[in-house]
Amino acid sequence: MTISKPAVVLLSGGLDSTTVAAIAQAEGFEVHAISFHYGQRHLFELDRARQTAQRLQLAEHIVFDVDLARFGGSALTSDLAVPKHESADEIGTAIPITYVPARNTVFLSLALAYAETLAASDIFIGVNALDYSGYPDCRPEYIAAFETLANLATQAGVEGTMRLKIHTPLIALTKAQIIARGLELGVDYSQTISCYDPRPNMAPCQHCDACLLRIRGFEQNGLRDPSLTGLSI
Amino acid sequence: MTISKPAVVLLSGGLDSTTVAAIAQAEGFEVHAISFHYGQRHLFELDRARQTAQRLQLAEHIVFDVDLARFGGSALTSDLAVPKHESADEIGTAIPITYVPARNTVFLSLALAYAETLAASDIFIGVNALDYSGYPDCRPEYIAAFETLANLATQAGVEGTMRLKIHTPLIALTKAQIIARGLELGVDYSQTISCYDPRPNMAPCQHCDACLLRIRGFEQNGLRDPSLTGLSI
Repeated sequence: MTISKPAVVLLSGGLDSTTVAAIAQAEGFEVHAISFHYGQRHLFELDRARQTAQRLQLAEHIVFDVDLARFGGSALTSDLAVPKHESADEIGTAIPITYVPARNTVFLSLALAYAETLAASDIFIGVNALDYSGYPDCRPEYIAAFETLANLATQAGVEGTMRLKIHTPLIALTKAQIIARGLELGVDYSQTISCYDPRPNMAPCQHCDACLLRIRGFEQNGLRDPSLTGLSI
Repeated sequence: MTISKPAVVLLSGGLDSTTVAAIAQAEGFEVHAISFHYGQRHLFELDRARQTAQRLQLAEHIVFDVDLARFGGSALTSDLAVPKHESADEIGTAIPITYVPARNTVFLSLALAYAETLAASDIFIGVNALDYSGYPDCRPEYIAAFETLANLATQAGVEGTMRLKIHTPLIALTKAQIIARGLELGVDYSQTISCYDPRPNMAPCQHCDACLLRIRGFEQNGLRDPSLTGLSI
């Protein structure tokens, strides 16, 4: 019997992070997932993350409170309107107002604290540098800089007993490729949610960046986004 | 009239961070201080930080909740015993159990989020690489790596509109030099507290690393630590 190595996986309950959790498991890691209650407008994300953790039978799942809404500055944590488009092709390259200041830096730092106490040397995050919203903290050079920092920041890194690695298995994949990989691993995408601005009944809006990228990704696999089942388009 | 530039200062209420706040003010910055309620055993630290913010008439002071005790692994956030010594010369170079996993990385990340929403390009932290407890996240190479990360992480950094700088005015000073600089700036050290393990009446224990380094620093300035006034040694 092999003993699994622990890994920390950032899990939002969306399509990307759910796929990453499945990939980490398929690579043989014992997955300790962390989700953040950070002041997002829609707490159903955290319910979906909890359901995902149960469905995948993860070793552990914690929901950590860190109130980034206190600092303001983003449509995802305030009353600013989320931008809407008619198609994914309209999504620009400028950093949009859904950007939450320093969000991934804060999340990765907390994942690092969690990893250090678990003696885990592996952290997985579902950032993606192709079909994404243009956030600076999703780029490969940003992730490389965080990995350098992590190895200077921690007891294990300094003592040379462990080399921390930030895994970004989605970083060079299109949304269509991410979906194809998740489907191979048996991920049930009908239970994941990606929308920045869902309707009152929590149905995806189908017009924010996250919805449009996701819908197009399924279309490119010849599929309809299963989270839209029963909804009119 | 000159308009002050905003800066974020990490303020624990201890000797080092109080000196840093005074230095940032003396350099002409409008100081926005941030303290952390992170699961430390002794909340009087936060009271001292609030008093310091009032005494120095800082522009703003926020106390941010981030429960690092949830991850465990440190004597500062758990029931593990804080090591005691007879003199500062006994303090070793190994990383001690008062180390809190990834603490400065988490604190700097949150300071970065705060700075970004304030449009501040300057963050001050009172790390010190000479008279310190041997924590990995106090070293110059760690701070340099965080500054690199910060400039890759943020909207302003990516757009090239602002270059974030992490100021560490104490990093190359001895405790005696830090105290001398603070006294020049009029800092009232009787109101700062550094002890890792104070007595029930909040008096410094005088035997933990932090107490011993501080007492020696005052002695090297020909002074008695003013926080000990009225206490028997």
